[in-house]
Amino acid sequence: MKYDYELEIKVRDYECDLQGVVNNSNYQRYMEHTRHEYLESLGENFAAMHEKGIDAFVTRVDIRFKTSLRSGDSCLSCLRIDKEGPKLVFSQDIYRTSDGALAAKGKVEIVVVENGTLTRGEYFDNLLKNLRNI
Amino acid sequence: MKYDYELEIKVRDYECDLQGVVNNSNYQRYMEHTRHEYLESLGENFAAMHEKGIDAFVTRVDIRFKTSLRSGDSCLSCLRIDKEGPKLVFSQDIYRTSDGALAAKGKVEIVVVENGTLTRGEYFDNLLKNLRNI
Amino acid sequence: MKYDYELEIKVRDYECDLQGVVNNSNYQRYMEHTRHEYLESLGENFAAMHEKGIDAFVTRVDIRFKTSLRSGDSCLSCLRIDKEGPKLVFSQDIYRTSDGALAAKGKVEIVVVENGTLTRGEYFDNLLKNLRNI
Amino acid sequence: MKYDYELEIKVRDYECDLQGVVNNSNYQRYMEHTRHEYLESLGENFAAMHEKGIDAFVTRVDIRFKTSLRSGDSCLSCLRIDKEGPKLVFSQDIYRTSDGALAAKGKVEIVVVENGTLTRGEYFDNLLKNLRNI
Repeated sequence: MKYDYELEIKVRDYECDLQGVVNNSNYQRYMEHTRHEYLESLGENFAAMHEKGIDAFVTRVDIRFKTSLRSGDSCLSCLRIDKEGPKLVFSQDIYRTSDGALAAKGKVEIVVVENGTLTRGEYFDNLLKNLRNI
Repeated sequence: MKYDYELEIKVRDYECDLQGVVNNSNYQRYMEHTRHEYLESLGENFAAMHEKGIDAFVTRVDIRFKTSLRSGDSCLSCLRIDKEGPKLVFSQDIYRTSDGALAAKGKVEIVVVENGTLTRGEYFDNLLKNLRNI
Repeated sequence: MKYDYELEIKVRDYECDLQGVVNNSNYQRYMEHTRHEYLESLGENFAAMHEKGIDAFVTRVDIRFKTSLRSGDSCLSCLRIDKEGPKLVFSQDIYRTSDGALAAKGKVEIVVVENGTLTRGEYFDNLLKNLRNI
Repeated sequence: MKYDYELEIKVRDYECDLQGVVNNSNYQRYMEHTRHEYLESLGENFAAMHEKGIDAFVTRVDIRFKTSLRSGDSCLSCLRIDKEGPKLVFSQDIYRTSDGALAAKGKVEIVVVENGTLTRGEYFDNLLKNLRNI
């Protein structure tokens, strides 16, 4: 897959649970952080959007866990953005840096709400117009 | 749906993010905690299983987010367990206590590994034999 | 010590780290949740205060860790509130339920800011006037 | 203060709470992550130590919160290590990158336990012998 953005993330030990591996919920957090850093790379900021009355809400996450990350590991968190009707759909894959093993494979769906009203994601159309033909 | 277990959970304010709602990743955490409390209700404990060399690993989570929980809210976290081949499949729904609104609807797949070897989930068969005909 | 409020908290397994014990940062979270539940018991809510332009900010935490909590444990999180000048000072002790062992002993200092201005904590004086002679 | 180690950390939005600022408990997490990265810079790893039966346990944290970090902020997390008897004492200061404002000032005390027995921290003496005259 051709990704639109990649972010290196180092595992933090408090993210590991009593099984000695990164707790599953943290992959969802890695994915959120990657989306928000991607947003910043486009010149926007999640909190600033919220202040303007524009909120992106996650409506669905579907994550498959493949290889457990552990203390000392780094990972490469990659995303690709597509539109499906009013939804933004992020394909988000996380790879262990040391060997490229796929750690988690996610699909995250987002809708954009402006002042309480569901939009067709036009706000992102503007941000993304220089990106690809999405 | 007929659930096998229900757990009341009060929202903690540190679980809410800058949008003023419970951060999505915490629903995954609520669901994990509910599964582990369910396990305790069956007389087993997650850490004790790990000590015995038996680990349950989540292989997939699929969560749809419906209604945002907020500061002050409680929710009822419900689960039903089924088996699909070697996998345990948990249907996990979270309802806002005040009005019964569906907050999140999840499907979580688990495999059981004993001393490094994937099992057919026999360990849970024993725990669950008195439950339903699953 | 005579406490003003007590809250039972069950350890959640994702709060345990790779040492198999509750990660230290979670005691700070337990203490925050206990303060906010205490606030609710007085008829107020942290988010509602924030909406009204009144924010309680933690200026200092000092926590001594005594006995590690583990998977399966419950704890009793106790607090006592005192005033020292403009500051609210919470003495917060956490005990393992099974045997009463002291798990963590904290002192948390709070100031109250109204619309950006530091107050002398009068807002809490009103909430607490029926409590003790503080 | 002369620091022994510095780590740049970008705020993640899920670390911000409903007040729109980084939740206090996360500074404790930033400090833990900084200590563990420092450990890696010395050629050791926290989980590997645990596997060898050597555990560093935090016995006290004392953190003063000065300036709130927000979405979009980065911070520089600095530490200095000293020994006081059997304890390792970390002075840990966190500065907002944009303007150098002090965000949090912490003192964290650690003891080292080997196979269940409290040590005088000799394990760290070896790691640190090339560092300073501590």
